Parts: sequence; C-alpha cells; structure tokens
Amino acid sequence: MTPDTLRQRLEQRAQRLEAIAQRWLPPPDALPERLHAAMRYAVLGGGKRLRPQLVYASGEALGLAPARLDAVALAVELIHAYSLIHDDLPAMDDDDLRRGRPTTHKAFDEATAILAGDALQPLAFEILATDASIAGGAQQRLAMISRLARAAGSCGMVGGQAVDLQQVGQQPDLNTIDTMHGLKTGRLIHAATLLPADLADAADTAVQALEAYSSRIGLAFQIHDDVLDETTETAVLGKPQGADRAAGKPTYPALLGLDASRQRAQTLTDEALDHLRGFGPEADGLRALAQHMIQRKH
Amino acid sequence: MTPDTLRQRLEQRAQRLEAIAQRWLPPPDALPERLHAAMRYAVLGGGKRLRPQLVYASGEALGLAPARLDAVALAVELIHAYSLIHDDLPAMDDDDLRRGRPTTHKAFDEATAILAGDALQPLAFEILATDASIAGGAQQRLAMISRLARAAGSCGMVGGQAVDLQQVGQQPDLNTIDTMHGLKTGRLIHAATLLPADLADAADTAVQALEAYSSRIGLAFQIHDDVLDETTETAVLGKPQGADRAAGKPTYPALLGLDASRQRAQTLTDEALDHLRGFGPEADGLRALAQHMIQRKH
Repeated sequence: MTPDTLRQRLEQRAQRLEAIAQRWLPPPDALPERLHAAMRYAVLGGGKRLRPQLVYASGEALGLAPARLDAVALAVELIHAYSLIHDDLPAMDDDDLRRGRPTTHKAFDEATAILAGDALQPLAFEILATDASIAGGAQQRLAMISRLARAAGSCGMVGGQAVDLQQVGQQPDLNTIDTMHGLKTGRLIHAATLLPADLADAADTAVQALEAYSSRIGLAFQIHDDVLDETTETAVLGKPQGADRAAGKPTYPALLGLDASRQRAQTLTDEALDHLRGFGPEADGLRALAQHMIQRKH
Repeated sequence: MTPDTLRQRLEQRAQRLEAIAQRWLPPPDALPERLHAAMRYAVLGGGKRLRPQLVYASGEALGLAPARLDAVALAVELIHAYSLIHDDLPAMDDDDLRRGRPTTHKAFDEATAILAGDALQPLAFEILATDASIAGGAQQRLAMISRLARAAGSCGMVGGQAVDLQQVGQQPDLNTIDTMHGLKTGRLIHAATLLPADLADAADTAVQALEAYSSRIGLAFQIHDDVLDETTETAVLGKPQGADRAAGKPTYPALLGLDASRQRAQTLTDEALDHLRGFGPEADGLRALAQHMIQRKH
C-alpha cells in the first residue's frame, strides 16, 4: 500500500469515526450542558484514532463490512478518550496540553473532567450492547463487552496506569516497563484488534495471529511514542517535548538509548507482519498500520 | 413483615453480596496490589447495600431465585461504590469521611482513588456479561447491560452529580432538586429495581408497577437522607452532621422545612406501596424496603 493510499484510508475512516461519534455523543444542548460539552471536547478533538483504525483494519482482514465496525471502533475510542482525560488530571500526570489543545480539566474544570471520563465509559458498553449497525448476534455482543471491560479494568488499562504512577522516580528494568505498557496501552490495542474477531466469530488460527500481531505492534507503538517524546518539537507533538523524561517517567530511550529503541520497534514490527502471513491482501490494512505505527511523526 | 424478620433478611442478603464481591474483586495480592486494595476497601467496607437489597427484593417479586440475583446486585453496587469514591474526591465534594471511615482518597491517595473508581465500573459490565450464576439468556444480559450503562451515564447518575455541583451556592427550586436527585440517586435505584425485570422478561404491567414504585422510593430515600443529614449525630451517620447544608448544598429540609420533608417522604412511600397492589405476598420484601427507606436511622 502506498503512503498516499494509506493516508487516504486513514482519513476516510477517521471521518467515519467522527460521524458515528456525532450520532452517539449527547448533543451539546442536552442537560447537563457543561458535562456534555466536555465529553464532546474530549472525543471530537481529533487525535490519531489509531485504535479505531485497528478495528477497521482487523475487521477488513476478517471480511466484515466497515458499516458494522463504526460503533465498535467508537466504543474503543471512548474508553481511550476517557482514559486520557483522567490520566491528564492534576492528581495523575498533571498535563496541561493534549493534541495541541488544553486538556479537558484545563478547558473546563477538574470535577467536570472527572465526570466526563466517568460518563464516556458506560457509553462505550451501551453502544456495544445496542447499536443496530453492528448487526451482531447477542453472543457476539457479549463477547465484545466482556473483552473491552477486561481490557479497560484493573488487570488491563487502569492497572497499567496504576503501575505507571508507581514507577515515577524509580529505576524499573525493561521487563517492568514492558509489563506496564502491555497493560496501559497494550490491552486496549489488543481489544481493538480482537473485537472484530469476536463479532466475526473468527477461527482460532486467525484469533491467534491477531493476538500475536497486536501484542507486538502495541509495544512497538509505545517505544516509538517514547522516541518521539525525546526527538520531536512541541509544536509537532501537540504536547511538550521531553515531558515524560522530565516527569521522571521511565522511557525506552532512557533505558536502551535511541538507536536500540528504534531497532527494537522495527524488530517487533517485523514479527507482527510475520504473524499475518496466513492472511492474503485482505490484511494489507493491518500491515500498513503496523509500519505506520513506527513511522508516524507525531 | 416484622422489623426482626426484615433485619434478618437484610443481613442475610448483605452477606450474600459480600460473598460474591469477594469472588469477583481482584485478590489483594494481584498486581497492581495498591489499586486492588483500594477497590476492595471501597466495596467491602459495608454500607447500607440498599441497591442490592432492591435487586433481591424485586427479583423475589418476579419469582427469581436469589442465586440468580447475586451477581446482578453486585454489578449495581460496584457502580454505586465507584460513584462514591469519585464524589468524595477533593475536586468534587471533598469529603474525608464515609461510612465512618476515611474516604478512599484519604485512606490511599487521590490518583489511586480515581483509578479504583475507573476500574470498578467496567467490572460491573463484565459481571453482567459473563457471570454464570445469573443464568440469563444473552438478550436478557444485553438488556441489563444497556439499562445499567444508561443509568450510570451522563443522562443518569453522572449527569446528576454534574447538576449537583452546579447547584452549590445557588438557590434552586424544588423541581430542580427533584430532577437532580432523580438523576444522581434515582436512576441507579431505578436500575436496581428493574434489572431483575430484564432478567425475568417481566410482563409490561409488572415493569410499569416497578417503575412507579422505584421513582417514588428513590425520591423518598433522598429526602430522608437530607433529613438524617440535619438531625443525626456524626457518630451514627458515619459522616459529619449537617455536612450537606454546610457545603452550600440545596437540601429538602432547607427548602421545605423538616416536617414537610418528612411528610413528603411518607406520601411518596404510600404511593410506592399503592403501585405494588397488583403483586401478592411475593412483593412483601419490596414493601418492607419502601418503609425501611424512610425509617432508617443512618
């Protein structure tokens, strides 16, 4: 897939996501308006939409029509969006800037930000349970709800954030950082890749290939994120350059150096691609995304 | 039902709830330990368990065995427990004491408290999707998930908390307070009463009766709560006496006076009981709970 084709596809699917988010998010004039404005601010603010892209690409590899994936992609993105709101709070990472704009608690206030996150989470499960366009059987919906709930919970994304907070100022080893990121970002990336398999009742071999793919791109994504944090200007990154290292967070470049970090991201990507060898051209979207994860500039 | 019989039943069902909570909450030695300790602290700390009691009593009225209601009751209680953690945060109500113990962010720290609440929420949906003891069809589970998600969301409980925060220092009228409480506590009490109807595929007449019952006891419960806040000593209440009024919160006694507040709670309870007239003795548990809501001392 050429870079232009990929860019076009990413753009087109980001638009699909935006459209279904507009349908599901409460309108800004519905009570309580300030809460709903904050929810819309956090979700409709753009961002990379990498998790929705994984939902679409994985669904494509499994033969699902994009129309059945819109609401699934949105559910994952809502969990991601809520986690960013809460991670940015003063009691957590205390970030003022996200995607080049004030974070939600800066644009609104802390209480509204907490509540906006709290309200986005159940919306994700309501969508999986009810959205008609998913056209899924009840068993498939339950499988998706269960998977997303586990990915979001204390042994998944939230657990990863808890481990992350405990590591600040520590000198964790590579294994600890891998585990932390495997929970904090890996589990939701894993869910994004596997939810379409639940919906499609995919064969075990396909599920195993997607699991191997997602664990590797999840880690490669995070390593590349750390590299970008060190090497990219604030204006391009949308958040302060070097913020993670400055906050005393363990990063891959700090532990491995920049070159070895880049090399590890490449190796993981090669392995991810290798695990897709059982798929034909229907998985070209997943292949292009894997490359994109470690080539993106922000 | 005699007060002794009721007390026995409430105690027995609270023990059922505690047992299933022990089964579903992550063990304290599972990583990340501090997060899991906070989740357990918030859920296993006792409390009135009124919402679980409603699940059991409503299920009994509909002919469901208690064993099928344990996990449903827990799901509702987890949503309630998470909301208490977040409501107590410094950016929200800033409370130090809850159920006679330090609030979760006081016993642990603010970040851990936010994350513990964040992790309890998806656990509720995972339970409804997967717990075997519910013995529910996939459609019934989806109906419960959807109902609980809407009750917890921005047009339900979280919306009510947002409206509540906006009212501090204001002089809202009775209608505004009713609406606020109808969202903040009413929607989850409504869900607790109606989830068993989803599980039992209850007839429309039963659903309508339970809806009318729950909206009235939900409001009566809140009015009685405000009365207790004004009239009960801190040691009995488990939180500082008069805290709501001191915090500039609109309360029913402040708006209506104590006597008229008590009278209104009684009238609502009478109406709730009247709506149960189509049920026989199988709804005696619901009847006793309605009375208990406005007679409890804390």
